[in-house]
Amino acid sequence: MNNPITIKILAKALNLSPGTISKALKDSYEISKETKEKVQALAKALNYVPNPYASSLRKKISNTIAVVLPEVADSFFSQAINGIESIAQDNGYHVLIYLTHESLAREETILEQFQSGRVDGILMSVSAETNHSEHIEKIIASGIPVVFFDRICENVETACVTTDDLESGYKAACHLLEQGCKKIAFLSISDKLAIINMRMEGFKKALKETDIKTGAVKICSNNEAECAKTIKKLLMSKNRPDGIIASAEKLAAAVYTVSSEINLGIPADIKVIAFSNLQIASLLNPPLSTITQPAFEIGSTAATLLFKSLEKSKFNLKDQRIVIPSLLIKRASTVN
Amino acid sequence: MNNPITIKILAKALNLSPGTISKALKDSYEISKETKEKVQALAKALNYVPNPYASSLRKKISNTIAVVLPEVADSFFSQAINGIESIAQDNGYHVLIYLTHESLAREETILEQFQSGRVDGILMSVSAETNHSEHIEKIIASGIPVVFFDRICENVETACVTTDDLESGYKAACHLLEQGCKKIAFLSISDKLAIINMRMEGFKKALKETDIKTGAVKICSNNEAECAKTIKKLLMSKNRPDGIIASAEKLAAAVYTVSSEINLGIPADIKVIAFSNLQIASLLNPPLSTITQPAFEIGSTAATLLFKSLEKSKFNLKDQRIVIPSLLIKRASTVN
Repeated sequence: MNNPITIKILAKALNLSPGTISKALKDSYEISKETKEKVQALAKALNYVPNPYASSLRKKISNTIAVVLPEVADSFFSQAINGIESIAQDNGYHVLIYLTHESLAREETILEQFQSGRVDGILMSVSAETNHSEHIEKIIASGIPVVFFDRICENVETACVTTDDLESGYKAACHLLEQGCKKIAFLSISDKLAIINMRMEGFKKALKETDIKTGAVKICSNNEAECAKTIKKLLMSKNRPDGIIASAEKLAAAVYTVSSEINLGIPADIKVIAFSNLQIASLLNPPLSTITQPAFEIGSTAATLLFKSLEKSKFNLKDQRIVIPSLLIKRASTVN
Repeated sequence: MNNPITIKILAKALNLSPGTISKALKDSYEISKETKEKVQALAKALNYVPNPYASSLRKKISNTIAVVLPEVADSFFSQAINGIESIAQDNGYHVLIYLTHESLAREETILEQFQSGRVDGILMSVSAETNHSEHIEKIIASGIPVVFFDRICENVETACVTTDDLESGYKAACHLLEQGCKKIAFLSISDKLAIINMRMEGFKKALKETDIKTGAVKICSNNEAECAKTIKKLLMSKNRPDGIIASAEKLAAAVYTVSSEINLGIPADIKVIAFSNLQIASLLNPPLSTITQPAFEIGSTAATLLFKSLEKSKFNLKDQRIVIPSLLIKRASTVN
């Protein structure tokens, strides 16, 4: 920056002490009206802006919260961010968005940086690789509150805002069973994510209640080409499934692409339902049945909890476990 | 934060001066090997992390760049962010993402905050409302470099990375004309955005070369319901168009939805092409013809220019106007 205007410069220009300038800018009762007017007029004329870092050092707050999440190219996360921002704006906070791109190493580096007080609080949805929580425990121990939304770390004692993942996985499987599916496969993006495992538990629970008893589970890579390969192998196998539960939006897109490539009809040959907030799900060929999560509400609720804990030191985040139900929307991809 | 470990605390514990501690932590040649080892061991044991704000005050750099853009729920922007992040990570910089939600007032507030040195540089795609550039000129004048990507402000003298918008608008219109369209309408999201106006100029240029001479232009609101209403009115009018150029992704989705509602066939009754980076464009019903922008490259090129100017004060951003061409992809929404 080219010589920003500082309190010292104002003090020199007006032949006053920096302390007087600082108090005058804060409209302190200790300073005379004349002096205050003089200082404030000069500050305005010179376009003086308080230095946020100096201010942060004094107050030890940055007026900033971080959102740490895997990606923004997913309709759930982009809608959740909108929910978070709506609350942050009401509270006069900045929102910093950090992307882990599903990498645990990157997540650890990001949290390490926060250790030094760059942000006042963190909203977090963990990466698909996250299999331990030391980096998260450490940041909480340093006094920076963390609230999980959607993708939680089960063994970390702090607030979580999620949807009813087990129940939704169960409902998705029951819907496919009702539509006559006999061989249902569950596509996962990770064997480490609690919410995906909950969805899978729901799927298994539904199958156990039938004669079928069990279904296939496939873990798909975060790498697009690898993922397509896994799905192609599954859909070309002798024991090809007749129903698919995609635990994430991008897996459903991959199933559609592969099915069209190998001439499998949806829903005639294979029925597909996905956990997705895609607003154009109904415009796909065929329209995609979805478990639609309350993304905006999950984001805004998580942000509300974080601000409560920032305002009131007595507010205990550990007691907060909020579950907001998802909606099953039946469309042509599962209904003949 | 709960009593963070500071240089002062380390100094007191080891009975050394804070200056010695600071130099020892920076591995200075002025400090003996024994002292350095002692200081570094204690710093590690106590989990000492340098305060970024104190450090920023000294170096006057924040190691942070801001990305200011309208939204993340758009495939162009989410891919551009990935391009920016790939370069920022190589340079060891943090990326802060700020959303304007297409509001000029919000954009002004965000830039006002940067005035005080919170970030070292800014990558920016302006809001649909942005009809003046005072707030941007002001931040550049304060010494913080700005690079525009995609949505530029024409009268601001700084680096711009865009795609060939006029040429693309022209190509989209020519494609619809080749497919037999006689009444082409151009759907815009703003009459203030330079890039949208360029696309429109290309569209008008193509029509001027024919007997048709002119086509309709509709400005659609950022409000979803309002936008659907405008499109519905257009598609139900007596003089209904037989071809649509959607200048943004969400407008194409709205055209699909309205067409299905009022039983217009795509492409039989109306052909649709959109400026979009939607990866699932080919999965829509029917597959959507697109002008696909080099979103990742636009983001990474803009970030590269910004880092060049941060590294070398002599690097002149004003001379940089980079245009990366888009690709027209023909699919069933325009081909009978």
